[in-house]
Amino acid sequence: MTHFEPPDPMIAPRYTGVRTFARLPHVELPRDDVDAAVIGVPFDTATSFRSGARFGPEAIRAGSTLLRPYHPVLDVDVFGALSVVDGGDLAVTPGNAMRTTEQIDAALRPLLSAGIVPLILGGDHSIVLGELRAQHAAHGPVGLVLLDAHADTWDQYYGERYFHGTPFRRAVEEGLIDPARSLLAGMRGPLYGPEDMEVPRELGFEVISGPELIRLTPEQYAQRVKVKVAEGPTYLSFDIDVLDPAAAPGTGTPEVAGLEPREALAFLRALAGVEFTGFDVVEVAPAYDSPGQITALNAAAVAYDLLALLAIARRG
Amino acid sequence: MTHFEPPDPMIAPRYTGVRTFARLPHVELPRDDVDAAVIGVPFDTATSFRSGARFGPEAIRAGSTLLRPYHPVLDVDVFGALSVVDGGDLAVTPGNAMRTTEQIDAALRPLLSAGIVPLILGGDHSIVLGELRAQHAAHGPVGLVLLDAHADTWDQYYGERYFHGTPFRRAVEEGLIDPARSLLAGMRGPLYGPEDMEVPRELGFEVISGPELIRLTPEQYAQRVKVKVAEGPTYLSFDIDVLDPAAAPGTGTPEVAGLEPREALAFLRALAGVEFTGFDVVEVAPAYDSPGQITALNAAAVAYDLLALLAIARRG
Amino acid sequence: MTHFEPPDPMIAPRYTGVRTFARLPHVELPRDDVDAAVIGVPFDTATSFRSGARFGPEAIRAGSTLLRPYHPVLDVDVFGALSVVDGGDLAVTPGNAMRTTEQIDAALRPLLSAGIVPLILGGDHSIVLGELRAQHAAHGPVGLVLLDAHADTWDQYYGERYFHGTPFRRAVEEGLIDPARSLLAGMRGPLYGPEDMEVPRELGFEVISGPELIRLTPEQYAQRVKVKVAEGPTYLSFDIDVLDPAAAPGTGTPEVAGLEPREALAFLRALAGVEFTGFDVVEVAPAYDSPGQITALNAAAVAYDLLALLAIARRG
Amino acid sequence: MTHFEPPDPMIAPRYTGVRTFARLPHVELPRDDVDAAVIGVPFDTATSFRSGARFGPEAIRAGSTLLRPYHPVLDVDVFGALSVVDGGDLAVTPGNAMRTTEQIDAALRPLLSAGIVPLILGGDHSIVLGELRAQHAAHGPVGLVLLDAHADTWDQYYGERYFHGTPFRRAVEEGLIDPARSLLAGMRGPLYGPEDMEVPRELGFEVISGPELIRLTPEQYAQRVKVKVAEGPTYLSFDIDVLDPAAAPGTGTPEVAGLEPREALAFLRALAGVEFTGFDVVEVAPAYDSPGQITALNAAAVAYDLLALLAIARRG
Amino acid sequence: MTHFEPPDPMIAPRYTGVRTFARLPHVELPRDDVDAAVIGVPFDTATSFRSGARFGPEAIRAGSTLLRPYHPVLDVDVFGALSVVDGGDLAVTPGNAMRTTEQIDAALRPLLSAGIVPLILGGDHSIVLGELRAQHAAHGPVGLVLLDAHADTWDQYYGERYFHGTPFRRAVEEGLIDPARSLLAGMRGPLYGPEDMEVPRELGFEVISGPELIRLTPEQYAQRVKVKVAEGPTYLSFDIDVLDPAAAPGTGTPEVAGLEPREALAFLRALAGVEFTGFDVVEVAPAYDSPGQITALNAAAVAYDLLALLAIARRG
Amino acid sequence: MTHFEPPDPMIAPRYTGVRTFARLPHVELPRDDVDAAVIGVPFDTATSFRSGARFGPEAIRAGSTLLRPYHPVLDVDVFGALSVVDGGDLAVTPGNAMRTTEQIDAALRPLLSAGIVPLILGGDHSIVLGELRAQHAAHGPVGLVLLDAHADTWDQYYGERYFHGTPFRRAVEEGLIDPARSLLAGMRGPLYGPEDMEVPRELGFEVISGPELIRLTPEQYAQRVKVKVAEGPTYLSFDIDVLDPAAAPGTGTPEVAGLEPREALAFLRALAGVEFTGFDVVEVAPAYDSPGQITALNAAAVAYDLLALLAIARRG
Repeated sequence: MTHFEPPDPMIAPRYTGVRTFARLPHVELPRDDVDAAVIGVPFDTATSFRSGARFGPEAIRAGSTLLRPYHPVLDVDVFGALSVVDGGDLAVTPGNAMRTTEQIDAALRPLLSAGIVPLILGGDHSIVLGELRAQHAAHGPVGLVLLDAHADTWDQYYGERYFHGTPFRRAVEEGLIDPARSLLAGMRGPLYGPEDMEVPRELGFEVISGPELIRLTPEQYAQRVKVKVAEGPTYLSFDIDVLDPAAAPGTGTPEVAGLEPREALAFLRALAGVEFTGFDVVEVAPAYDSPGQITALNAAAVAYDLLALLAIARRG
Repeated sequence: MTHFEPPDPMIAPRYTGVRTFARLPHVELPRDDVDAAVIGVPFDTATSFRSGARFGPEAIRAGSTLLRPYHPVLDVDVFGALSVVDGGDLAVTPGNAMRTTEQIDAALRPLLSAGIVPLILGGDHSIVLGELRAQHAAHGPVGLVLLDAHADTWDQYYGERYFHGTPFRRAVEEGLIDPARSLLAGMRGPLYGPEDMEVPRELGFEVISGPELIRLTPEQYAQRVKVKVAEGPTYLSFDIDVLDPAAAPGTGTPEVAGLEPREALAFLRALAGVEFTGFDVVEVAPAYDSPGQITALNAAAVAYDLLALLAIARRG
Repeated sequence: MTHFEPPDPMIAPRYTGVRTFARLPHVELPRDDVDAAVIGVPFDTATSFRSGARFGPEAIRAGSTLLRPYHPVLDVDVFGALSVVDGGDLAVTPGNAMRTTEQIDAALRPLLSAGIVPLILGGDHSIVLGELRAQHAAHGPVGLVLLDAHADTWDQYYGERYFHGTPFRRAVEEGLIDPARSLLAGMRGPLYGPEDMEVPRELGFEVISGPELIRLTPEQYAQRVKVKVAEGPTYLSFDIDVLDPAAAPGTGTPEVAGLEPREALAFLRALAGVEFTGFDVVEVAPAYDSPGQITALNAAAVAYDLLALLAIARRG
Repeated sequence: MTHFEPPDPMIAPRYTGVRTFARLPHVELPRDDVDAAVIGVPFDTATSFRSGARFGPEAIRAGSTLLRPYHPVLDVDVFGALSVVDGGDLAVTPGNAMRTTEQIDAALRPLLSAGIVPLILGGDHSIVLGELRAQHAAHGPVGLVLLDAHADTWDQYYGERYFHGTPFRRAVEEGLIDPARSLLAGMRGPLYGPEDMEVPRELGFEVISGPELIRLTPEQYAQRVKVKVAEGPTYLSFDIDVLDPAAAPGTGTPEVAGLEPREALAFLRALAGVEFTGFDVVEVAPAYDSPGQITALNAAAVAYDLLALLAIARRG
Repeated sequence: MTHFEPPDPMIAPRYTGVRTFARLPHVELPRDDVDAAVIGVPFDTATSFRSGARFGPEAIRAGSTLLRPYHPVLDVDVFGALSVVDGGDLAVTPGNAMRTTEQIDAALRPLLSAGIVPLILGGDHSIVLGELRAQHAAHGPVGLVLLDAHADTWDQYYGERYFHGTPFRRAVEEGLIDPARSLLAGMRGPLYGPEDMEVPRELGFEVISGPELIRLTPEQYAQRVKVKVAEGPTYLSFDIDVLDPAAAPGTGTPEVAGLEPREALAFLRALAGVEFTGFDVVEVAPAYDSPGQITALNAAAVAYDLLALLAIARRG
Repeated sequence: MTHFEPPDPMIAPRYTGVRTFARLPHVELPRDDVDAAVIGVPFDTATSFRSGARFGPEAIRAGSTLLRPYHPVLDVDVFGALSVVDGGDLAVTPGNAMRTTEQIDAALRPLLSAGIVPLILGGDHSIVLGELRAQHAAHGPVGLVLLDAHADTWDQYYGERYFHGTPFRRAVEEGLIDPARSLLAGMRGPLYGPEDMEVPRELGFEVISGPELIRLTPEQYAQRVKVKVAEGPTYLSFDIDVLDPAAAPGTGTPEVAGLEPREALAFLRALAGVEFTGFDVVEVAPAYDSPGQITALNAAAVAYDLLALLAIARRG
C-alpha cells in the first residue's frame, strides 16, 4: 500500500515539475490505496455567458503549487492523514453536455466503488449532474451543500435541459439528491421575477440568500448546514462565483457583492463533522482571471480546505 | 404607448445582440413613453491622472449584459415598473470641456422636459456640470448626494476651471445645486493641506469622509442623507472610485482603502424614498480594468440599483 | 428607400454611440433597401481548444469604430456604393451546434431572398454550415474560397459531427458547396498523419498550404482563385487563424507561422471580380486577444475589405 | 539647508516628470538636510515562487504619483514636517543574495550615520537582512514589527541560507534584532507541519496569526505592538503579501484570505508613538499585478503612511 | 564641461535606478554642455480615439532600460559622440491643447538657443505644433520628415482646430514648415473620400502611402527623403502607429497593415546625412500595450536610432 | 519496450489531462526505450533584466497542447519515428547558478548514457552550461548552433561569472564546445562598444548578426551551419529572443527587430542532416507574454521542429 503525498519540497522548489494538484502524484485510478482523488473535468459547453471553464482544472492545478500538507487553522496534516492523488482529467465531449454527463458518471463510479472520495475541479456547473449520478449509484440520494451565487435550478435555457443553470433541478428529478437534506447558500443578483426565488424552495431546497449569508457567522452557517443535512452522505459543491468578483474575476457568470475568500473559507472550515462523500469546485474560467490568477489561487485554497475536512473525518 | 424593456432572454442568450445597457431597446429621444433613459457621455478630457473614461459607457454596457428585471433585495420589478431605454451617447467634443458641458446641458433638457429621468454613464466627472445645468433648468436648484473618493470642489487645475476636480464648485457658483440639501460622502486620501478639508464645507456641503462612511450602517447613512436632502429634487452622482481599487481598478484617480461593492450597494438601497431626478455613474476607465472587467460589472450593478430606486418611487 | 450608412463623424466623435459595425445603423431585417448586412453569430460551443468566440461579434464591432467609407487602395466608396446595416446577432443555442445550424439557416434565408448579402461575424467555424445551407437555398451549390489555418474537413471529433473542424465536410455531404469550384488556402501546422493532407482533396477541394500561400503574390493567388471558382455564386470564409498569432492571438486554435495582415488583405483585395454572395470572418476569441485588441482590429479590417469587394461588384 | 519636498502640483500635472517616489527630488546621499529617504532595492534572486520583485521599486514609484503632502487621518503635513528625498536604487548583484546583503548594509550605513531614516522599497524579503545589519550598526539590536503572510524564519531553502524565507532567522543569529522586542503578525496559509508554527516562537518572537490579526481592532494591535517593542529603536517591515490577493495580486508568494488595505492602513496608523528607525515595503512583483497596478498603489499608500508615522514622531 | 552619458552598467544592473531615458542623467536645462536632450511631453487631450498617450514618456523611459551606447549597424558610439541628458517632462495643461502648444514652444526655445537638439517623447501628435513653433523660432521654416499612418492634415475635428489630426495643417498655415521640403510617408487606412488623399498634397506635401512605402527599399526611401529635404534644417516626426499593430498595439488610433519594426528602423538608419534639428516619437499609449510593453520597446529603439543619426552628423 | 507517444486524441480532447509536452507520457528517467525526452529546467536566477523564465517550462507545456504527430513540411511522423517522453523538471536551486549548473549536469548524464536525446525547456540561458557539461561528458566537445539575439559570451556581470550572458564563454573555457564547429546567429541590438562585436569571434566562434541573418534564405543559413559544424556531435540552443518581440514578448531581454517565427522555423527545418545530440529552447518568461501566450506557442513549435529534425535523423 502506497501512501500518496506531495514530494519533499526541500529537494526541488515547489514550482518545479509537471503541474498536478498540490504536486500530488498523478496516478491511474481506481486503486485501493487512495483515500481521495483530485480530478479535473474540463468542460464548458453549458455556459450562459463567459466560456472558458474548460481550462479551470489547468489553472487550479497551477494555483495549487504552494500548498503545504499541514492546515494550521483546522490543525490537521492533510496529506499525512489522507493518501491523495491527482487523477488527471476525465474524458469529456465538448459540445455535448448530455453525453459528457454520462461520461462523468461512468468514470466516477469505479472510484467511488473503490472508496475514493472525488474532489472535482470544473468545468462549468453542468458537470455536477454526472457527479451526482455517480454519488447516487454509490450512496443513494445524497444531501447537498451548495455555495453559489445562483441556485442553478432552472428548467431549461433556450430549450437546453442540460445546462450550467439547471443541474440541481435535474438532480432532484432523477432522485439523486434529497432536497430535504440540502442547503443552498449565497444566491444573489437580479432575477426574472419574484417567483424565481421560490423555484429552489418548491423543489424542496432550503435557501440562504447572499445578503443573508454575509450576516451569518461561520458557526451559525455550520449550524444551519448540520441541522439540515444531519446524518448521511452529503455532497458539497462550491461555485467560485459565490466569491466577490474582486476575488474571483475569472468565472463564467460573475455576480457583484459576493463573499470574501476569508469568509468563504471560514464557512467551510466550520463544517467539520459533516459526512462528505464528494466535492467539487467549479466555474473557474482563467481567461478572465487577473494576471496574478487569484481566482485560481482561491479555488485551490477552497479545494485544499475541502480535503482538510475529509482529513479530519478520516482521522476520526 | 410602448413599454420599453429588455427582450425575452429565453429566445436568445443574453450575450447576443448589439450591446445596450441591460439589453434595453436603443431609442431616439425624447418621447413620451419613456420613464428613464440610460445615456452615455464618453468624455475624458478633463482628467488629472489616468485617461480613458471615454470608453466607460461602452464597458458598462458590456458589463450590464446579465442584468435581469427583478431586484430581489428591494423587491421591485425594475423594468416592469419603469419603461426604460438606452438613449445612446450624447455628442461631446474631446479636448473641450467647456463646450462639452454645453452640449450635455442642451441634449438633456428636452429629455427632462419630457419627464424622462436620465441615468448618465460617464465619462470623467467634469460631465456632471452639464447634467446639473439641465437639472436646474428643469427643477431649479437640486440637492446633491455624492459618493466619491474626492469632493471635486477645487477651483481649478493648472488654470483650467472646467475639470474633473472642479464641477461641484462650478455648480454652486452657478446656483445649480443647493449645498444645504447636499451630502458628499466617501472622501479619502492625502490632501495638499488641512485647509483642503474645509473647502467643500465652506461651499456649504456636508461631508462624510471615507473612514467615517465605512463605520456607518446603511440605515445610518440613509438617515443622514434623508435629513439633509429632505423634500425636493435630488441628484445622485456615483463616482466609481468611491469603491476600493480591488473592486474598481479601472478608474482615473484610484484611491486606496475604499468601500466594498456590497457596502456601496447597501448604502444605495437604503435611499429608497428620496426624490431623485437624475443619476450618474462616472469615472470608469476600462483600459485599467482587470481582464474580467469587474469595474464595469460593479458600475452596471450600481446603475441597476439606481433604476431600482426610481422604480420604487414610481411604483409609489 | 433609405440609403443606410454611418452617421456624420464630424458631429460626434466616432467612438460615441452604441457599438455597431462601422457605426452602421442597427436595423431589423429583411427589408428592400439594404444591399449588405453585417450580422453576428455569437456561438462557440463547437470548439476544440480555446472557447470564447461567442464574444467575437462584440469585439469586432468595437474594433470597427474607426472605419471610414472610402477605401483608398481599391478606390471605392464602400458605404456610398452600398446601403449597409448592422443586423444585430442571430439567435443561437449555446450547447447545441446542430440546432444552432438550423437557426442560422432559417434566419438568413429571408435576407438572401431579399437580395441582402450577409457578412457574418463569428463565432466558431461550425456556424458556416448554417450559412451555407441558406446560401444553397438561395443560390444552389456555391463555390468556396477559404482562408484558414485548418481545412475543417474532419469527419467528427469525439463522436461529434457538428463541430468547428467538420463544417466543410458536412457541406459537401449536404451538397451545399461545389468542391470543384472551391479553393482552400493557408493550411499549416502538424497533422495526425500524411493521409490527413489528402482529406480535403478527396472531397474534391483544391488546397494551397500555408507555406505555399506565403510564397504567392496576391495576383498569383487571385489567379488561382478565379480559375477555380470561375463564374457563379461564391462564398468567402475567412478564419482569423490564417493570420500569424502575433497579429491574431485572440483565436480558438492558434497556429504559428501564419500570414501577416498586410499579406492577407492584399490577397483579398486581389479578388475583385469574383461573384461573392456571402462572407464570414470567424474564430475571433477576444478573451485571448492582446490589451489593444489587435485581433479584433484585423478582423474588422478584413470585414471592411470584403464589403469593399462587394461595393466594387455592385458599382459594376 | 534645503527642505526637500515634491514640486508645486499646480504648475504641471502630477503625472509629469521622471518617476520618483511621490514626485520627491532625486538626490545623492548622504547629506545633512534630509530626514528620510525612499530607496529602492530591486532584487529578486531569493524568491521561492514568482520572481519579478526587482521591478517593485519602479512600480511603487509609478503608483505613488498622486500622493499629496497632508495626511488627513493622522492630521500631519508629511512633506512639511519632514525633508524627504528619493535616494534612487541601491546597487545589487542579481544572482547573489549574500553579496547583495553586504551591498545593502554598506550603502545604508552612511545614511543612518547622517541621521536619515530609510524607507526601503523591495525587492524580495531577503533584502531586509542587509537593512537590519545597517540598523544594528547604527542603533544596536532593534525591535521588529513585521506584517507578513509568512514569518520568514526558515533555516534554509534547498541549501540556500540567504533567501526570502530566512532573513529573520539570520537576523536573530547575527544579533541584529531583539526577538523579545519583536512582534510578527499576519502569518497564514498551510505549513509543513504543526512544528512550523513554533519556529518563530522558538527564536523568541511573538506571533499573531493572520486569522487572529483580522479579529483585532487597530487599537488592540497597536497595544500589542507597544507593549512588546516598548522603548528603543524599532524596525517595521511590511510584506505586501499580508494583504489579500484581491488587493495585492502582484507579489511573489500570494496567500489567500489576507488583510484588506483599509485594515492594514488602520493598523499602521495606530502605531504612532513607536520609535521607528527604518522601514521597508517588500515583495511587490508588478508583472503579476492587475492592469490598474493596484498592488503598487497599495504599496505606495503603505509607504506614505510609514512616512506619516515618522512625521508625527519628528513633529514631536 | 560635463559629458553626460549613462552610468557604468557593471557597477549596478541596468534595471536599477530612477527611470530616465537610456539611464541618462536627469538634468535641468538649458546648459552649454548638452548636445541632445530627451524630453517628455505627457499630453493626450487632443485624441480622437484611445486616450492614454500622457503615459507615453513614462513607458518609453521604462522601455529604454537596456539601451547601450554603441550602435553596431550605424557603427557609432551614440553616447560617446554626444553629450545627452534626460530633460524630464515639459509642463502641459491637460484639457487645453492650445495652451499646451504655447507651453511647449516656450519651454523648447531656450534649449534650441543653447544648441541642444530635442528628442521629444509624446504624447499625442498635437504636441508637434509647439515643437515646430520652437524650431521655427530657432531655424526658420524647417523641412519635415513624417512617418505616420495618418497625414494629420485635417482642418478640424468637431470644431477643434488644435487636435492630434490637424498639426501639420496648422504648421503650414503658421509658416513653420516648408511643405516643399517635406515628405510624409506611411499613410494608410480608410478615408472619408477620395478627396482626402489630396489634402496633404494641396498643402504642398509629398506623400508616400503605406502600401507604397512597404515596397521601397531603405535606400530608395532615403533617396526620396534626401531629394526632397535637400539642405537645411529638418524635423523628423515618428508616429508609432506607422508600425503594424502587432508591433505597436499601444497607440491611440491603430491602423492595420503597417510597417514591421525592422523595416522602420532600416528606413531611419538610411537617413544619415540629413540635417536634423529635432525629433519626436509620439502616440505611445501604454494602457493598450501588451504585457511585455513591446510598443514602448520599439519606441525606445526608434528614439535611440534617431540619436544615432545625430551622433553620426556631429561626428562629422 | 514501450513506444512512448501522445494518447489517442479521439478519446478525449487534447486540452484534457495534466499538462505535459505535447501530451506525452510523464516518465521517470533514464530508461532504455526512450529516444528523446523533453525536460524542464525552471531556473531564472541569472537574469539581467526581466525575471520569470522559471515558469517557462510550465508555459511551453501549456502551449504545446495542440501539437500532432505528423510534420507536413518535413514529412515525418515525429512521435511515430521516436519514442518520446516528458521527463518532468530537473531539480534546481533558485539563487544559486553555480550549484544549479552542477545539478543539471548530474541529472542529464545518466540520460545521455542511456542514449536519450534531451530537449531542454528553459529557464534562463545560464542553464546551457550544465547541459553542455553533460553533453561533453557523453560526446566530448560538441559543435554549437546558436540562434539568439545575444551572443552570451560576456565574461561576467557585476562580478557574477555564472550568468545568462556568460555561458558560452564558460563553455569554451571548460572545453565543452568546439568554437571551430560553432555558428552563432541572430545577434542584434546596441552594444557597449565596437570591441563587443569581436568578443565571440575572439573565442573562435563564427557569428551571423541579426540583420545579416534576415537576409539569408533558409538554404543559405543551413549551408553555413553545415559547413561549419561538419560531422560530429552538435548542440542546438534556441533563445526565444531571436524572434521579434511582436512574436515573443514573453522573454527576459527582448530586443527589437528580430526574426519572424516562420523565418526561424524555416531556418531550423533546413538543418535536417546535422548530427544533433541535444537541444534547448530558453528564455520564455510567461509573465510578460500576451494573454494568448504566443511566446509559449512559438516556443512549443520550435521544440516540436527540433524533435522533427531528430526524427528524420533516426529514421535515417
